[in-house]
Amino acid sequence: MFNAKAKAEILKDLIDVTSPLVNEVKFNVSEKGINLRAVDPAHVAMVDLTIEKDAFDEFKADEMELGVDMDKFAGIMRLASSGDSISLTYDDKANRLVIQIGNLVRKMALIDTAGMPDPKMPTLELPGKVVVKASELIQGVRASEAISDHLAISMNKDNFELFAEGDTDTVNLSLSKDMLEGLTSNGDCKSLFSIDYLSNMIKPVKSSEPLTIHLGNDNPTRVEFAIANKKGHVTYLLAPRIESE
Amino acid sequence: MFNAKAKAEILKDLIDVTSPLVNEVKFNVSEKGINLRAVDPAHVAMVDLTIEKDAFDEFKADEMELGVDMDKFAGIMRLASSGDSISLTYDDKANRLVIQIGNLVRKMALIDTAGMPDPKMPTLELPGKVVVKASELIQGVRASEAISDHLAISMNKDNFELFAEGDTDTVNLSLSKDMLEGLTSNGDCKSLFSIDYLSNMIKPVKSSEPLTIHLGNDNPTRVEFAIANKKGHVTYLLAPRIESE
Amino acid sequence: MFNAKAKAEILKDLIDVTSPLVNEVKFNVSEKGINLRAVDPAHVAMVDLTIEKDAFDEFKADEMELGVDMDKFAGIMRLASSGDSISLTYDDKANRLVIQIGNLVRKMALIDTAGMPDPKMPTLELPGKVVVKASELIQGVRASEAISDHLAISMNKDNFELFAEGDTDTVNLSLSKDMLEGLTSNGDCKSLFSIDYLSNMIKPVKSSEPLTIHLGNDNPTRVEFAIANKKGHVTYLLAPRIESE
Repeated sequence: MFNAKAKAEILKDLIDVTSPLVNEVKFNVSEKGINLRAVDPAHVAMVDLTIEKDAFDEFKADEMELGVDMDKFAGIMRLASSGDSISLTYDDKANRLVIQIGNLVRKMALIDTAGMPDPKMPTLELPGKVVVKASELIQGVRASEAISDHLAISMNKDNFELFAEGDTDTVNLSLSKDMLEGLTSNGDCKSLFSIDYLSNMIKPVKSSEPLTIHLGNDNPTRVEFAIANKKGHVTYLLAPRIESE
Repeated sequence: MFNAKAKAEILKDLIDVTSPLVNEVKFNVSEKGINLRAVDPAHVAMVDLTIEKDAFDEFKADEMELGVDMDKFAGIMRLASSGDSISLTYDDKANRLVIQIGNLVRKMALIDTAGMPDPKMPTLELPGKVVVKASELIQGVRASEAISDHLAISMNKDNFELFAEGDTDTVNLSLSKDMLEGLTSNGDCKSLFSIDYLSNMIKPVKSSEPLTIHLGNDNPTRVEFAIANKKGHVTYLLAPRIESE
Repeated sequence: MFNAKAKAEILKDLIDVTSPLVNEVKFNVSEKGINLRAVDPAHVAMVDLTIEKDAFDEFKADEMELGVDMDKFAGIMRLASSGDSISLTYDDKANRLVIQIGNLVRKMALIDTAGMPDPKMPTLELPGKVVVKASELIQGVRASEAISDHLAISMNKDNFELFAEGDTDTVNLSLSKDMLEGLTSNGDCKSLFSIDYLSNMIKPVKSSEPLTIHLGNDNPTRVEFAIANKKGHVTYLLAPRIESE
C-alpha cells in the first residue's frame, strides 16, 4: 500500500535532483518516507535522496519498491502548478502509479525493479568539510564552464577554493573561513572534478541555501543539501578526475 | 468602406483563434461587425468567428470582403503592445488594408477572395451539452498529448469525462454535474477526437473562461466560447475520429 | 595601470552597443575614461563609444590600449547580476584583464592590439538633424524588417519620415515637428539604409530614451545617444545604400 499527498514543489524537488543523473529510478517506499539511491550510467556520480513522511500532507505506506521513469514523471508534474496538491497512489492490480492533479487522474505504468541495482553508499574518510552558500558555488561553476571541462576544489584550515584553467584564461573563487558558514579541514585537501557533473548537481539547489562539501585528496567529494522544506535530504557522491599531467 | 478602431487585444483574439487552423481567411465585413468562417486544409475542423461592432472603439463599414493572410497580419499585430489602439482602414484604390499602430502606418496587400469558399455551418442534432471551465479541458488535453494522438469525450446526465489511453498509461478527467457550470444530456454521448486539433482549438481560450461543448455519438463536437470582452463569439466544429477497433 | 570599478549595467551598456558590430575591440584607456572606435568587417558602420571616468565608482588609469574579445567579455558579464559591483584591473605581467564579480576572480587573456586599426571619424556636413524617441524608431525598423532589407529615412523642415517598401506592402512612420523632441533641416534630406544595421544599432537603446539622427542626401547617417546613466556617449555612423533604380 502506498498513498501520499504532497504539494507539487516537494515532488518537483525530487525530480530536479534525480533526473539530470538517471532516467530510471527505484523509489524505496516505507512508512518513514521515500528513499532512492542511483548511480549515473557512466558510474561517475551517485545520488542518495530521502524525503521524510513529514514532508507530505498525507502519507501511508507499506515497504515496497516503485520503478519510475523520471522523464515521464517530470512530464506529468509539469501539468501541475506550484501550490497544487498532488495525490500519489499505488494501484497494485494494474501495477500503475495513480497521480491525481486537481480533477485529472493520470495512471503511469511502473518499471520492473527486478534488475535494478541497490548501490551501496561507500564509506569515505574525507578530512575537509565546508558549508558554503549555493550561489557562490553556482557562480564559480558557471564561470568555469566557459573555459574548461574540469575544475579543482581545494581547502585548508583557513580557506576554500575553486580553480579552473583554460588555454589562456582562469577562474578563481577563494573564500576565507569568515566568508563561509563553516570550515574544518585536517591539512590540505584538493581534488579535480568534471564541471558537467558539478553543474547538474548544483542546478536544483536554491541559490540562497547552504551546501555542505566533504573533500579529500584525489578522492570523491560528498555534497549534501536539504530539499522539501528541510524535510528531505540529498547526498551526492562525485568521483574525482585524475590529473593527466 | 471599412474604417475601424480597436484595442490590440481584440484583434489578437481574432488572430489567436483563426491562425492555428487556416492561413488565408476571408473577413466578411458588414455594418454589424466582422465575421469569418473557415475550414482547415484537411477538412477536419471549421471555425466561425464573429466580432460585433460594439467590440470596436469605432466601426463604420459597408458590406464587403477582405482576404487576409493571417501570418502576415499576426506579424504586424506583434508590433503593437497590449492597450495600443489600432486603426484599420480599407484603401479601395490600392486594395490594401491600412493598419495604423501609434504613428506607424502599415499597408498590407489583400488576397483575392474570388476563389475562397463560403463554407456552410452544418446543422447538427447533438444531444449532450456541457459548460466547463477552460482550465480543466486545457489540463486534460495537455496530459493526453503525452500518451496518445486521440482522446474520447463522453457525457451522461450526471457526468462529463475525457479519456485517453496510451500503450501503458491513461489519462482520465471526470467531472460530475456539481463540478460543472452546466450539463444536460439526453442519454449517453461519446465521440473520439484528434488531440492536435483540440489542442489548437483551446489554446486561445483564457483558462478561467467557460467553454460550451456540444456532443453526440461518433459525431462532430461543437465548441463555443466568447472572445473580445464577450463582444465576440467563436464556434468550432471538429469532426470525430472513428475508432479503429 | 588600469583599475576601475563599476556597476554591471555600465559595462553591459558598453557590450550591448559594441558586440553586434565587431567582435575584437581595442579599448583606449586614459585618465578620462574609456573610448573605443571600431568599424564593422563589411565597412558599412562605425561606432565611437566613450564612457567617462565619472560613470565608474572608482577609476584610475594611465594611457593604454586593451584588446578585448567582446564575445568572451559578454559571457563573463552574464555571470553578474544587475546591481553587482564589477572590478576591472589590468595585470601587466600576465597581460590579462582581471575581472572580479563578487568573490569570483576571472582572468581574461587580451588580444594583441598591434595590428588593430585606429579608424578616423570622417567629418560630414549633414544638413538634417532630428531628436526622436527611440521607441518610435524601434517600431518603424521592426515593422520594416518584415517586408524589405532597406528603408529610407527622410526629413524636411516640418517632418521626419521612415519609409520601407516590399513587393506589395509598405511601412511608413511620419512624425511632424511637434511630435519630435527636435528637428532642424536645411531643405530636404533623404538616404537609404540597411535595415539589418539599423536594427543592430538601435537594439541597445532604451525605448524611452532620445536618439539624435543627422541626415544628408545619399550620405551616411550619424546617430547619437547617451549610455551609462548619461555619463557615456555613442556615435554611430552608417553608410547609405545606393538606390538601384
